[in-house]
Amino acid sequence: MATRIETDSMGRVEVQTDKYWGAQTQRSLQNFRIGEERMSREVIRALGILKKACAQANMALGVLDKTSGDFIVRAAEEVMSGRLDAHFPLVVWQTGSGTQTNMNANEVIANRAIDMAGGKLGSKAPVHPNDHVNMSQSSNDTFPTVMHIASAEAICHQLIPALKHLKSALDKKVAEFRDIVKVGRTHLQDATPLTLGQEFSGYARQTALGVERAEGCLKNLCRLAIGGTAVGTGLNAPAGYDVLAAEKIAEITGLPFETADNKFEGLAAHDAIVETSGVTRTIAASLMKIANDIRWLGSGPRCGIGELILPANEPGSSIMPGKVNPTQCEALTMVVARVMGNDVTVGFAGSQGNFELNVFKPVMLYSLLQSVRLLSDAVRSFTDNLVVGIQADRERIDALLRNSLMLVTALSPRIGYDKAAHVAHEAHKTGASLRETALRLGYITEAEFDAIISEQLSVSSYQR
Amino acid sequence: MATRIETDSMGRVEVQTDKYWGAQTQRSLQNFRIGEERMSREVIRALGILKKACAQANMALGVLDKTSGDFIVRAAEEVMSGRLDAHFPLVVWQTGSGTQTNMNANEVIANRAIDMAGGKLGSKAPVHPNDHVNMSQSSNDTFPTVMHIASAEAICHQLIPALKHLKSALDKKVAEFRDIVKVGRTHLQDATPLTLGQEFSGYARQTALGVERAEGCLKNLCRLAIGGTAVGTGLNAPAGYDVLAAEKIAEITGLPFETADNKFEGLAAHDAIVETSGVTRTIAASLMKIANDIRWLGSGPRCGIGELILPANEPGSSIMPGKVNPTQCEALTMVVARVMGNDVTVGFAGSQGNFELNVFKPVMLYSLLQSVRLLSDAVRSFTDNLVVGIQADRERIDALLRNSLMLVTALSPRIGYDKAAHVAHEAHKTGASLRETALRLGYITEAEFDAIISEQLSVSSYQR
Amino acid sequence: MATRIETDSMGRVEVQTDKYWGAQTQRSLQNFRIGEERMSREVIRALGILKKACAQANMALGVLDKTSGDFIVRAAEEVMSGRLDAHFPLVVWQTGSGTQTNMNANEVIANRAIDMAGGKLGSKAPVHPNDHVNMSQSSNDTFPTVMHIASAEAICHQLIPALKHLKSALDKKVAEFRDIVKVGRTHLQDATPLTLGQEFSGYARQTALGVERAEGCLKNLCRLAIGGTAVGTGLNAPAGYDVLAAEKIAEITGLPFETADNKFEGLAAHDAIVETSGVTRTIAASLMKIANDIRWLGSGPRCGIGELILPANEPGSSIMPGKVNPTQCEALTMVVARVMGNDVTVGFAGSQGNFELNVFKPVMLYSLLQSVRLLSDAVRSFTDNLVVGIQADRERIDALLRNSLMLVTALSPRIGYDKAAHVAHEAHKTGASLRETALRLGYITEAEFDAIISEQLSVSSYQR
Amino acid sequence: MATRIETDSMGRVEVQTDKYWGAQTQRSLQNFRIGEERMSREVIRALGILKKACAQANMALGVLDKTSGDFIVRAAEEVMSGRLDAHFPLVVWQTGSGTQTNMNANEVIANRAIDMAGGKLGSKAPVHPNDHVNMSQSSNDTFPTVMHIASAEAICHQLIPALKHLKSALDKKVAEFRDIVKVGRTHLQDATPLTLGQEFSGYARQTALGVERAEGCLKNLCRLAIGGTAVGTGLNAPAGYDVLAAEKIAEITGLPFETADNKFEGLAAHDAIVETSGVTRTIAASLMKIANDIRWLGSGPRCGIGELILPANEPGSSIMPGKVNPTQCEALTMVVARVMGNDVTVGFAGSQGNFELNVFKPVMLYSLLQSVRLLSDAVRSFTDNLVVGIQADRERIDALLRNSLMLVTALSPRIGYDKAAHVAHEAHKTGASLRETALRLGYITEAEFDAIISEQLSVSSYQR
Repeated sequence: MATRIETDSMGRVEVQTDKYWGAQTQRSLQNFRIGEERMSREVIRALGILKKACAQANMALGVLDKTSGDFIVRAAEEVMSGRLDAHFPLVVWQTGSGTQTNMNANEVIANRAIDMAGGKLGSKAPVHPNDHVNMSQSSNDTFPTVMHIASAEAICHQLIPALKHLKSALDKKVAEFRDIVKVGRTHLQDATPLTLGQEFSGYARQTALGVERAEGCLKNLCRLAIGGTAVGTGLNAPAGYDVLAAEKIAEITGLPFETADNKFEGLAAHDAIVETSGVTRTIAASLMKIANDIRWLGSGPRCGIGELILPANEPGSSIMPGKVNPTQCEALTMVVARVMGNDVTVGFAGSQGNFELNVFKPVMLYSLLQSVRLLSDAVRSFTDNLVVGIQADRERIDALLRNSLMLVTALSPRIGYDKAAHVAHEAHKTGASLRETALRLGYITEAEFDAIISEQLSVSSYQR
Repeated sequence: MATRIETDSMGRVEVQTDKYWGAQTQRSLQNFRIGEERMSREVIRALGILKKACAQANMALGVLDKTSGDFIVRAAEEVMSGRLDAHFPLVVWQTGSGTQTNMNANEVIANRAIDMAGGKLGSKAPVHPNDHVNMSQSSNDTFPTVMHIASAEAICHQLIPALKHLKSALDKKVAEFRDIVKVGRTHLQDATPLTLGQEFSGYARQTALGVERAEGCLKNLCRLAIGGTAVGTGLNAPAGYDVLAAEKIAEITGLPFETADNKFEGLAAHDAIVETSGVTRTIAASLMKIANDIRWLGSGPRCGIGELILPANEPGSSIMPGKVNPTQCEALTMVVARVMGNDVTVGFAGSQGNFELNVFKPVMLYSLLQSVRLLSDAVRSFTDNLVVGIQADRERIDALLRNSLMLVTALSPRIGYDKAAHVAHEAHKTGASLRETALRLGYITEAEFDAIISEQLSVSSYQR
Repeated sequence: MATRIETDSMGRVEVQTDKYWGAQTQRSLQNFRIGEERMSREVIRALGILKKACAQANMALGVLDKTSGDFIVRAAEEVMSGRLDAHFPLVVWQTGSGTQTNMNANEVIANRAIDMAGGKLGSKAPVHPNDHVNMSQSSNDTFPTVMHIASAEAICHQLIPALKHLKSALDKKVAEFRDIVKVGRTHLQDATPLTLGQEFSGYARQTALGVERAEGCLKNLCRLAIGGTAVGTGLNAPAGYDVLAAEKIAEITGLPFETADNKFEGLAAHDAIVETSGVTRTIAASLMKIANDIRWLGSGPRCGIGELILPANEPGSSIMPGKVNPTQCEALTMVVARVMGNDVTVGFAGSQGNFELNVFKPVMLYSLLQSVRLLSDAVRSFTDNLVVGIQADRERIDALLRNSLMLVTALSPRIGYDKAAHVAHEAHKTGASLRETALRLGYITEAEFDAIISEQLSVSSYQR
Repeated sequence: MATRIETDSMGRVEVQTDKYWGAQTQRSLQNFRIGEERMSREVIRALGILKKACAQANMALGVLDKTSGDFIVRAAEEVMSGRLDAHFPLVVWQTGSGTQTNMNANEVIANRAIDMAGGKLGSKAPVHPNDHVNMSQSSNDTFPTVMHIASAEAICHQLIPALKHLKSALDKKVAEFRDIVKVGRTHLQDATPLTLGQEFSGYARQTALGVERAEGCLKNLCRLAIGGTAVGTGLNAPAGYDVLAAEKIAEITGLPFETADNKFEGLAAHDAIVETSGVTRTIAASLMKIANDIRWLGSGPRCGIGELILPANEPGSSIMPGKVNPTQCEALTMVVARVMGNDVTVGFAGSQGNFELNVFKPVMLYSLLQSVRLLSDAVRSFTDNLVVGIQADRERIDALLRNSLMLVTALSPRIGYDKAAHVAHEAHKTGASLRETALRLGYITEAEFDAIISEQLSVSSYQR
């Protein structure tokens, strides 16, 4: 394997000829042989966005010459696009500041720019990874900025659209099922009726609130640390740079990024990431409820609840022929379990900052982005492969409803809780119907009974 | 111990004569001998608020007679006030719907009302626990409503004021320490300087954002399930009752409660509680950082960092005479550890709803209220017993600062990163000063060096 | 309120006359007004055990005079017994070393001893809280020792007996249900049959393994830090003290305590507590499965699975008359949720030691003991109020079984998976029986079909 | 892209010609486009082991013909070796039983066997994926078995050796540092002395106990569910199959696998995985303490504690020239944060079984294996790139030690706690030395003072 020599402040390192990275990336590769979790596409794209914006700001403020700056912008755009992903080999488990990944970006952009300029890779001329690409920056402000850019983009472009997609499919079911009266269940026990549409409206509402929650965490995600440089003071960055760099990032991404009021908070804590992770966890809890309900309502086909008919997407068993399982619910709830763990990781890591820096940045970003990605993908899969195809088994639903003892509840306002309870207990004990029992006990007339019950079974009662 | 007979739909039960509770409370006492964690003051107060509001709404809508209603209102006010706390003996570890605690309130209010009316305890006349006190209600909508009332009150009256109190103390320190330039630390290693005031401004900002986050979760907490009754349909509640009951609760508490758009979501999921718990966790993560920084900066007195002098509140060791420890930081960070666990409990519990009900309500409420209470108390204790008394050891700070090799960073824009690194490495290796080394290496003139470094040591550079 | 003056190395403090505690306890009361969670009975008892054992070891080694020693032993025995609980007012949220609670014990025992000796409270003569009661000790080794004593006792005297009690009740059900063949369910969908006894044997096995796991963590819990004193070196403790003190503790408790090999580990880390908490969490996960299964199998009474009939212990609803709910399952699963959170607290806290001390001791102990206590109580309540009363609804079970399509699985070895799947799909689509379908498709003869299916329905097939 | 037709019980599916997988794998690929986390090498290897062992057992028991069996064994060995990894494309986020991955193995092995036999891919002859490769098996017992094989191998071959490697490096440091007396620190505050060797002995002991804990969880991991088939009854498996299959697995792996006593527990719960995850979490907590201590002791170089000199592996900052950071500690503690979250995922997932199956299998396995892999890799990296190169700064250590006020503690047994505290407080207030102060206050003679203190500073005191 052909190599060239790259150098950094510690000396010389051999790097594969066909890679743009430099000495520091190479050292990280050698010193951190831990796992296989690489910095993801979202992170690399965010690095490209950031480096482009910083070069633009540096040029605008007159500290970076236009020639170097333009090369940096072009190389950074290639980083954004994904063309240079093969040049970002570093894993998550490196320095906790993300310095090595920031240097990876600096080195790749510098060498790519040198390449464009016809220079010699590794020569650091005409574009130097630290002095030019990283100008007015430190890993300590760039990596937090990358964390916010990548997270905000993932929330906006992955999670929110996926939740809206689910919401829309659920809304269709709410409408489709609005005239199906069914038995309610509380404590897993039969309860008073509601419509299947109402039951689904709860899921739709949870999903809509999930969208609101996801939107709510963007405010703090959009506050950027860039401009704080090494410890938050902005040392070595020109005046106005923080505001301008954030504006450029907003321009490139179309999201409302702005400079953070306090850069010390932005480097030393990542509370916005903790907050966002908490939101993904709340959304996950909602999805757990929805997925569980749907698979229980679809349980059977003959020995379960069986009110819903779920799409059969694949054979369900390697030994039981003909078995079909609620696999989309399973994938989604496994994702929920993962998100709950990711959230603990993020909260733990977020609490461990010291002085001017939190050095758990890569694991926080990795865990949050995994949560967002998995939730988004799983919600789409769940929607397209399951929700849209759910059908109600109207006969089964009706049979169960008419058999339920909890229709007795509607008698309470008329005969009082204690007598109503007496009717239910008797019916349960004897296996007789509520009607028969209520009349036998003489608590109510036949006409009254029939009127109250038929009101309960009538869909119009539920559509006020 | 004298007893009387109380009855419920399952039969007769003996209850202590001097207690207002009835048969169902008594059964719960006997059937759930689990732990000692009782429903807290906040929960009992919220039950009083709710029962008063419901009675008012029922009277206003003409379904409850004024005599019974007025008795219920008066008894409910006594519940609110704490006068009847001894009549709420139930533990958290009961039915997951909180039905037994709702019935505890119904029974106590009914018997207290009967008492006021000169009736016989246990007679259920003239005020019946179910038919009157629980009129237009189910545990399934009252307990979620109580969860929201108690949590919103705790956030507003405990947590937010405590955080503001800390914020204000931190702001004073920001001002007091604004002219103290000190060495920064990243990765626990010496870094470029900042002022001690800037360092504290990060804590103040985290705290201010904590207040914003706490306020942010009130929107969903203020949406109330009351009116949904058994499964969300509002069965047995009069039209307009949900809106009115929420208005009454808003009136009593002074908080912006309103009826929830979708009652099915409100009974079957407690995402607003999960969300709020997530917020307490984010605040906890912030506090961990602040408390850790302060104890590390105060470490010593002779073998640590020693930049801060912390108040000596008590002897610190049973064996080491004269030892003083950062005990307020320790209490606060132990609370943080507890909040992180509580949050996992709430998230797990919140994900486990089925169909029309989530039956993990009491544990969710208990855990969230414990988090809020502990955070609030600990933050106040930390502020009053520690933060206000923090002093800077200016001599120590200055000595460390002047010795730091990272002052070299400011040379970078002038001589480039690589040469600056060379200076730092040489100085580290030889133990010489940066000045001596930089001049020896010939990278910079004496005048330039002195100008750049003195700029860095000057407080005015940090007060732009 | 009458007070006397107590003193410590920081000066004078007023203490209520009728309390034995001294200056440091009083300072803690004033400086830590955080929450209401006091040190529990188990902890106070363990303090008594420890102080008794240490006094005995000190006397045996000739560093403590017999008169003082005997007074200390007698006072410590009163602490063990619970007679002096009112003199232990401190909360969990204090110094992270538990020093204040150690001093609480020292002060109470010293003053109680002084009282016995006819001395003056607060005079520290003839028994001094530090020089005599705390002789050869530091909070840094006593509190870890108390953590181990209290936890080991709780595991042995609360958790293991409770689990064995459940195991025994489950074993009875295994026997009682051994001849009931029922449909299996995987993915919530109908699967091949098993007996109800086999289903319960899984629960019994989980419980038995829970006992093994609880026993397994005793090894490390029984290794005691006492003798390490301030930082693990044993400064100020006589030679042989560590071994002897542990022996005395073993003698008093009847548990196999011994001195830890390495005291530095014992003070600075509490991995044995983290390990034990992990075990409670694993047991909790088992109990979640068991409780969930039982409530689902008992769901209904008319619109659920309904294979089990659960005891009706109390009315289940404040609005739905006659409703009965699986409340013991709910209490137990809420405890599980609590234990999962406690475990996160313990793991987090356990990871945060620095140098010679971990200062999250009280929160770790509180959380672990809460887990053990709640699990133990809830398991007993669950066993006595639910498990022993579970009945099988044999008719319902049989009807569901005979209707199941998954009986088809047993045809596979005879006709192959693909044809068997064809039969199941056809039967599902047409609503016809398996028998009718299999014969119509011509995949098997009537005789073969009947033989294979009847084998599956016969209980003897399951009792090999 | 050339394709062929594969079929399953639901019909025909197109599959890439150059892949061995079949219809069910292909359906999973299409239906579960969720994330990128594929089944890892360890899992694929374990599938190979299992399928080989099952074929051997089936042949030995006379239910599988030798020709088919031998082909299956050979193909399974290729799966074990990694040669066929490209044919295992499925992600973790699929059906919760792992059925699709089990079928992936069945299909690949069948087609590879067909290929060897000169047959036509997709023809299912002469080797059928269900009837032959999956003979006497169900996903429901194979996947749990794979979970145990992969986890046990990872614990034995990755984690335990890595921990032993660290232990050995720490032991060397214990020896190297045995004669360096240094100040202890509790509550981050100066405490009584110990040797640096003793401090490291605590880490070594934690690591040794970690090995014990890892070994301890093997007992339950080595109990295998294979032979339970669909629901635990062993339907369609020949008598003796469970014992024999486990023996074959033990033979292939060299680990003490055996058949589980109760297969119902083995399918429906994965408590052994939860238990093992808890162990990784306890080990992670230990590592957090060790890594934190080392980076704090190495903090500086001029403004921190500075007792240790850590290896400089790479430049530490993109903006601060010459900065070196404790990056190996950072990578390791980030892994700890990840493991803590993974453990929550596993505990949550493990609690969610229903009836005869837990359908969170893939996420449990993925999370546990990630924990084991990351811990193992990070521990090795930490050992090789950091621990072995740690040096003590003896001058710095000695200077701090001699300056410490806590040397006063050793005076206590001679002059009592109260006077010793007086000396310490005075010295702290005046800045004077302990010696000067103690003599001035007249509490002790010069000779006594010098004898006691010199004893403390002498390394021989610490080597008893």
